[in-house]
Amino acid sequence: MSRTEISTLGEFGLIERLTKDIQPRNASTLRGVGDDCAVLHYPDREVLVTTDLLLEGIHFDLTYVPLKHLGYKAVMVNLSDICAMNGTPRQVTVSLGLSRKFSVEAVEELYQGMRLACEHCGVDIVGGDTVSSLTGLTISITAIGEVRKDDIVYRNGAHPTDLICVSGNLGAAYMGLQLLEREKSVLHSSDGVQPAFEGKEYILERQLKPEARLDIVRALADAGIRPTAMMDISDGLSSELLHICRQSGCGCRIYEEHIPIDYETAVMAEELNMNVSTCALNGGEDYELLFTVPLSDYDKVDALDDVRLIGHITAPELGTLLVTRDGAEMTLRAQGFTAFGDE
Amino acid sequence: MSRTEISTLGEFGLIERLTKDIQPRNASTLRGVGDDCAVLHYPDREVLVTTDLLLEGIHFDLTYVPLKHLGYKAVMVNLSDICAMNGTPRQVTVSLGLSRKFSVEAVEELYQGMRLACEHCGVDIVGGDTVSSLTGLTISITAIGEVRKDDIVYRNGAHPTDLICVSGNLGAAYMGLQLLEREKSVLHSSDGVQPAFEGKEYILERQLKPEARLDIVRALADAGIRPTAMMDISDGLSSELLHICRQSGCGCRIYEEHIPIDYETAVMAEELNMNVSTCALNGGEDYELLFTVPLSDYDKVDALDDVRLIGHITAPELGTLLVTRDGAEMTLRAQGFTAFGDE
Repeated sequence: MSRTEISTLGEFGLIERLTKDIQPRNASTLRGVGDDCAVLHYPDREVLVTTDLLLEGIHFDLTYVPLKHLGYKAVMVNLSDICAMNGTPRQVTVSLGLSRKFSVEAVEELYQGMRLACEHCGVDIVGGDTVSSLTGLTISITAIGEVRKDDIVYRNGAHPTDLICVSGNLGAAYMGLQLLEREKSVLHSSDGVQPAFEGKEYILERQLKPEARLDIVRALADAGIRPTAMMDISDGLSSELLHICRQSGCGCRIYEEHIPIDYETAVMAEELNMNVSTCALNGGEDYELLFTVPLSDYDKVDALDDVRLIGHITAPELGTLLVTRDGAEMTLRAQGFTAFGDE
Repeated sequence: MSRTEISTLGEFGLIERLTKDIQPRNASTLRGVGDDCAVLHYPDREVLVTTDLLLEGIHFDLTYVPLKHLGYKAVMVNLSDICAMNGTPRQVTVSLGLSRKFSVEAVEELYQGMRLACEHCGVDIVGGDTVSSLTGLTISITAIGEVRKDDIVYRNGAHPTDLICVSGNLGAAYMGLQLLEREKSVLHSSDGVQPAFEGKEYILERQLKPEARLDIVRALADAGIRPTAMMDISDGLSSELLHICRQSGCGCRIYEEHIPIDYETAVMAEELNMNVSTCALNGGEDYELLFTVPLSDYDKVDALDDVRLIGHITAPELGTLLVTRDGAEMTLRAQGFTAFGDE
């Protein structure tokens, strides 16, 4: 592949090359890239704004994360935050700090992943900043979305007896990370050995290419369910559930046996001699939705695809408890070990 | 001064400490820090969004920029972009990448400067991200503002015969930077010598503590003037004026003798044996507003405080010209040498 130095294009040339065929697809995008600001139009919706800063060596490791996947994930984790408010993402701004090791082609690859994530979710890239950096890659993304005022779901609305639900399954992204770390050390230690990724495609994909659960936001709306509290799981189930309990002034009781875990996640945990429930509780980066609904919505929630009931909200004096498979009660602790997004 | 390690607070503790007494002051801020997203309310205005990424060693040098000033400037340059669309800034998000050399007290100082800039302009801090970094300080700011649809001013609306105006004066921030660079090398070369900043307070302040010209946006509205095109001057007058001409499909003719230059700027240029007009044309970082108005607004613009007419827009085939003091015509060139904001 040819290598074009960024300096041959300059900042404006690079931005022009990256953004030249971007066409806004949302009615709310009046003006995107090319002026001092983007101009957005939100006459009868509330505007949601969220932002993330990702630094090479802290949040991602380019020795095993392809640039296209990195771009995809960097956008998706922000769109996930919009979903966590029960909103619909519409725009992102993308700022990049690029050291000299990155060619124009490398930046295009990163940008391709970002654009793919935007296309999947119907989102427009409306601006950003591209600067040179002394060391490595810096990515800063701001996502903007919309929600009807009555549909906003905060973290602080959970009530005792509410049902606690999660979408998809948990621990997969963390197991994917463990796999990548293991294969990285194999690659470093002996030449000629190929990474052993067969039969582990799902957990790899969950680590490298997470999806914002916009489909769940839509399914909730279609089913007439308005969650009382919601977050996306970036730091691990325990950590996020404790946020909801603290901000709602409640306790909780969840059941280990009900925590959804994929087969590949369980196999990988077994291989690494790790407790799979611990991984599901603390692994993070799954970007599934954690939400609470009134008890009266039991039938509606039970009928949803890819959503599991894992427990219920309690009075605060009952504590924040995990009931293990053998019936013991343990207090939940936040001990996320996330490498991406929030620390 | 005591030094508290960030690790003793953790990410959430640090954010809580930095944001604990922030009270939203804008009606458009429904929810600020503390959930997955900020929630904003813009029922009858267009929403403006702009973002900047600032990296230590590229955009700022902590050997001579105090953290409080850095925070102030980092926010102001974004608010200036909102003004450049003829808008009013309302919210910012602030993301920080912090290496271990920064104590909690240092981050508080940086944040103080940011909050001061926000207070000056009536802006709310509504979110952000705080992460650790391997090397130095990373600042990413997104500013959000509002504007009535009919009041938006893009870069591409200038027409032949329009008057070209600038607020304030130019070249001062660049001269301030030269002064700081000179005193930095003095400090490095000989002990005990104090920096010679006397009589140079104005250019220092222009470099360290620029102001978004929200006052000019208001004055234009009060005078019933709607500019046809507008930008803020971050990369230098030449560069910005060429953007307006290119995007509007026009030429221009500006007069060296009309470019506003402060006395301290002229003295400093003299001391450094630099051409002061070149500094004013290419210096950048002044964050003054450059705008064009219809010829029929001549009297209104002429009556404004702190605004100067420097020339007029022409047909594109007439070129983009500077008329020098001795009557010669030169083609404008973009050769900004900015160290902060856009490269």
